[in-house]
Amino acid sequence: MIFGGGGFIGSAIVDRLLLDGHELTIFERPRVEPYRKFLDTEPVKWLTGDLLSTHDVGDAIDGMDIVIHLVSSTLPKSSNDDPIYDVQSNLVGSLQMLNVMVAKKIRKIIFISSGGTVYGRPEYLPIDERHPTAPQVSYGITKLAIEKYLLLFEQMHGIKTTILRVANPFGERQRIETAQGAVSAFLHRALSGQPIEIWGDGTATRDYIYISDVADAFARTVTYEGPQSVFNISSGAGTSLNELVSLLEEILGHTIECRYLSGRSFDVQVSILSNTLAQQEMGWMPKVPLREGIENVVKWMIKTRGK
Amino acid sequence: MIFGGGGFIGSAIVDRLLLDGHELTIFERPRVEPYRKFLDTEPVKWLTGDLLSTHDVGDAIDGMDIVIHLVSSTLPKSSNDDPIYDVQSNLVGSLQMLNVMVAKKIRKIIFISSGGTVYGRPEYLPIDERHPTAPQVSYGITKLAIEKYLLLFEQMHGIKTTILRVANPFGERQRIETAQGAVSAFLHRALSGQPIEIWGDGTATRDYIYISDVADAFARTVTYEGPQSVFNISSGAGTSLNELVSLLEEILGHTIECRYLSGRSFDVQVSILSNTLAQQEMGWMPKVPLREGIENVVKWMIKTRGK
Repeated sequence: MIFGGGGFIGSAIVDRLLLDGHELTIFERPRVEPYRKFLDTEPVKWLTGDLLSTHDVGDAIDGMDIVIHLVSSTLPKSSNDDPIYDVQSNLVGSLQMLNVMVAKKIRKIIFISSGGTVYGRPEYLPIDERHPTAPQVSYGITKLAIEKYLLLFEQMHGIKTTILRVANPFGERQRIETAQGAVSAFLHRALSGQPIEIWGDGTATRDYIYISDVADAFARTVTYEGPQSVFNISSGAGTSLNELVSLLEEILGHTIECRYLSGRSFDVQVSILSNTLAQQEMGWMPKVPLREGIENVVKWMIKTRGK
Repeated sequence: MIFGGGGFIGSAIVDRLLLDGHELTIFERPRVEPYRKFLDTEPVKWLTGDLLSTHDVGDAIDGMDIVIHLVSSTLPKSSNDDPIYDVQSNLVGSLQMLNVMVAKKIRKIIFISSGGTVYGRPEYLPIDERHPTAPQVSYGITKLAIEKYLLLFEQMHGIKTTILRVANPFGERQRIETAQGAVSAFLHRALSGQPIEIWGDGTATRDYIYISDVADAFARTVTYEGPQSVFNISSGAGTSLNELVSLLEEILGHTIECRYLSGRSFDVQVSILSNTLAQQEMGWMPKVPLREGIENVVKWMIKTRGK
């Protein structure tokens, strides 16, 4: 059962779990177009409903074994505009889901958290899972509160919980308006001849992780039964925005115009996450180098342009 | 401006701040009886209203300089029964208050957090402010989320924030049904000849801090302008329930019957908080020893019995 299984990350996880032979149900909002046709031979059920409706959620998860929760109603960059909406839709919404899961005796829940926002300003690098959590945006505060409630419900009700704090994912199907999506946003502009807009001086450094590696982490989490609950999912390496632009220029074979805008106060300067724990516990490792991942996105963008 | 200024902790803070010469407004729910008569010469205004009403809160804080936020709608021990109510009334309620404070240009906010529940199981003792936060109860999760939002609003809107993570406060006027109130609950039973009920084997250890020392910490926080935002307010010493009973027996001069009940899973075995940061930054120190504090409560209970 995958809540949010039709999005950028969800669809990659679905495709990967189908390869692994799992039977899946996808829950999405009404009017979200399935990202591809599923064959009659593929064990996928596509349900639509309102996540804030305990009725819709209850019907959907009846008889399910594992729930993957990927839904967020807000984006990091805009969540500060209305923290109450963020709390109501994401935190209270997740608590409602959790209450239904207790009633329906779900065995396990896997939750996507935000490696980029829950830690805040790094006190050391790379940031491991024991680093203090001091989110600079509402998005990170609600993700963190949901994490704490998941662990509380695990203790109270025995629902096994795994939390993946995913760094900056990129890849095909990423929407260009998400805050983490520098790769997609930059590529989109570069391919359509527009200048790239960079907040700050371009030294802001992020940890970009390719989508198939993220999907691989979720696939391993499904079968992971070890004692750990919280994992960073990251490349373990930092890339500055300026380095990213240089790499894009290399791949595209032409220069890209950059416009530098004044920095945003809530942006963390450097975010690089250690993935050692996921390597040790789940045998997971990122496999797709940044350059190769970007080349894949370029091909996909060119192929789907104008569609 | 003191939200919750009529309660056990609030009333002690009010009395202390009046001694320091501050002008105060107390905001309480309707039908909360003032804990004492205020003289015409005392600069205290007693307002009533609904904290979830932005209208009531807005009217109340208009023109105020500093807000002290002491309100909680839930108790640690019962908050897990309905986490959604906990989030709605405490977290969303506090966010609504914060939005009003931004609009009304409040300079500073002081918030009471929970030294007993935000940390969870101790990884080392005494627990300092940098200890990981892994609350075992909803009460602690919402307190922690409010803390994070206060710090976010400080950064976004410049409202200076101080958070006091108070250990296990005790003293006159404490309600006997609160989870932290072992001293009051035990004394109430011992004085009325009832046996004491102890969850677990009585080795559970807490950090009891006398109410006048808590009030002193808030008084210092009002004038504190240093860089730190989060302080433990604690005695720094641990007392087990069995030690507490022995001390009560000494003070009362007779034995007390104890009934041991099976332990609650969410109870942390040991909670002792370091108060070094508050000492260094605010020159605050606990002054009233546990024995002297308990003697004060005994006197007060005997004086007010049957009233």
